[in-house]
Amino acid sequence: MTIKPILDRVLIEPKRKENETKSGIILNASSTERPELGIVVALGSGKTCENETIDFELKINDKVLFNKYAGTEISLYGKDYLILKYCDILAVIE
Amino acid sequence: MTIKPILDRVLIEPKRKENETKSGIILNASSTERPELGIVVALGSGKTCENETIDFELKINDKVLFNKYAGTEISLYGKDYLILKYCDILAVIE
Amino acid sequence: MTIKPILDRVLIEPKRKENETKSGIILNASSTERPELGIVVALGSGKTCENETIDFELKINDKVLFNKYAGTEISLYGKDYLILKYCDILAVIE
Amino acid sequence: MTIKPILDRVLIEPKRKENETKSGIILNASSTERPELGIVVALGSGKTCENETIDFELKINDKVLFNKYAGTEISLYGKDYLILKYCDILAVIE
Amino acid sequence: MTIKPILDRVLIEPKRKENETKSGIILNASSTERPELGIVVALGSGKTCENETIDFELKINDKVLFNKYAGTEISLYGKDYLILKYCDILAVIE
Amino acid sequence: MTIKPILDRVLIEPKRKENETKSGIILNASSTERPELGIVVALGSGKTCENETIDFELKINDKVLFNKYAGTEISLYGKDYLILKYCDILAVIE
Amino acid sequence: MTIKPILDRVLIEPKRKENETKSGIILNASSTERPELGIVVALGSGKTCENETIDFELKINDKVLFNKYAGTEISLYGKDYLILKYCDILAVIE
Repeated sequence: MTIKPILDRVLIEPKRKENETKSGIILNASSTERPELGIVVALGSGKTCENETIDFELKINDKVLFNKYAGTEISLYGKDYLILKYCDILAVIE
Repeated sequence: MTIKPILDRVLIEPKRKENETKSGIILNASSTERPELGIVVALGSGKTCENETIDFELKINDKVLFNKYAGTEISLYGKDYLILKYCDILAVIE
Repeated sequence: MTIKPILDRVLIEPKRKENETKSGIILNASSTERPELGIVVALGSGKTCENETIDFELKINDKVLFNKYAGTEISLYGKDYLILKYCDILAVIE
Repeated sequence: MTIKPILDRVLIEPKRKENETKSGIILNASSTERPELGIVVALGSGKTCENETIDFELKINDKVLFNKYAGTEISLYGKDYLILKYCDILAVIE
Repeated sequence: MTIKPILDRVLIEPKRKENETKSGIILNASSTERPELGIVVALGSGKTCENETIDFELKINDKVLFNKYAGTEISLYGKDYLILKYCDILAVIE
Repeated sequence: MTIKPILDRVLIEPKRKENETKSGIILNASSTERPELGIVVALGSGKTCENETIDFELKINDKVLFNKYAGTEISLYGKDYLILKYCDILAVIE
Repeated sequence: MTIKPILDRVLIEPKRKENETKSGIILNASSTERPELGIVVALGSGKTCENETIDFELKINDKVLFNKYAGTEISLYGKDYLILKYCDILAVIE
């Protein structure tokens, strides 16, 4: 069973405290405005609510930075995911 | 008697607690911001208020995730439904 | 004497408690967010304030669902009506 | 001396209590959200602030329904008028 | 020395109490929502912030009605002026 | 070292109390809503955030009126400057 | 490992107190509305959320002024960065 995002939404598996040290990215847990890290799990079609078609500048398995408040949380088989609009993803970590 | 959504609206039959365990999707009831599950019952024409024509990326009987606050509740013959804009549906569960 | 809606407005005669049982639609009176039922009495030209031309997906005598707060109430010869924008009508009941 | 509305504005002479009985339109004075009746006195050019050109679906001497709060009040030689945007006029009473 | 409005702005010399009686326009001083009278002193280029070009439906020396709150006040050699956007001018008094 | 404004921004050196008497422009210090005077020091490219290209109706060394709250203040070698969007400049004083 | 901004975002390394004296730019620490200085570290593709393509008027290693509140803070290997939209960068310091 899979979650297929609609339109220009992206499904992300958040990677919080566990990979911060390895990646060198220190996300200050005390600051709620700092972005979070995650892995891209699924991409929507790229159509927007305004009927434009965008090209995603990221692909499945990319590590991305996003603002947590922008997404909608969901749990599937005990794993947490976020669905958020492509435009709320800030950067790809390569 | 049927409910025919106007424009880009979608009629959804919410599936709450009863199918969470089967589907593996755990929607935390204590969190009001978590999305809900539902089944697509009817689709509008796909025209928007701005006079665009969108292609629905879902079909009748699809299981979808949506933000409950975005829809309008209605009861028909004792069954609850929601009418919401296509753009407020987050993902299809396949 | 008739009321001719301007632009993309629709004139509706609200049908409240009296036809809920017959139609099977139960509108919970205690919930102010539930939509109301009504009959389409007159349609505007279909031009919008943004100078678009829309095609109404409803016709005179259609039974429709709408959000009451969206309309403007008026009384004519003792009958109550609502004038509301086409985009605020949610669905046609067939 | 005349008042010539600019752009898509309409000059209206409000007709309040005096013609309600004759016209059959009962505007509930206790409800501030009910629209008012008026007579169209002058029309602007039909150009909008966004540089569109609209066609007025009303003419001078038409009886119209409008939301009072939307207009700007003015007095000329002891008579009260309202200037309001065409889009805030709800319907023509014929 | 002159004040040259930028874009679609209009420079107006307000005419308050002194000409109300002569013109027959009674602006109720107790109502802050009533518009004010003024004389057009200078016109901008007619370009808007959105890069459109509008045609002014008024000319220098026209007597106009405007909403005071919409303008920015300035004094030049002891005279008061207002700079306001063309779209905030309601009507020309002829 | 110079400050080069980006897009449709304008760099302005504010001229406050010192030149008010000479210019005849009296800016009432007690009124925070009155605009301020300044000299244009540098112009951006004229491209806007919406990807339009505007033509500046002002040039370097022009004396301009602007709303102070619209700009961002900066100090360079002890001199105060403001960076503001072209659209927030009200008029050129000639 | 690098941070690649998405769309029209810019990655900036803030330069606060340490270079203010050298550059001559005095950013008043007591004023939270004053902009900050930074060095451009990486540029996105230049596509916007509205599907436009903009040309950056800055390049890597440029010293820029920006409003701190507009950006999202992140730490990488102990260094602080900001990701912000191109349109929130005010000026280049040359």
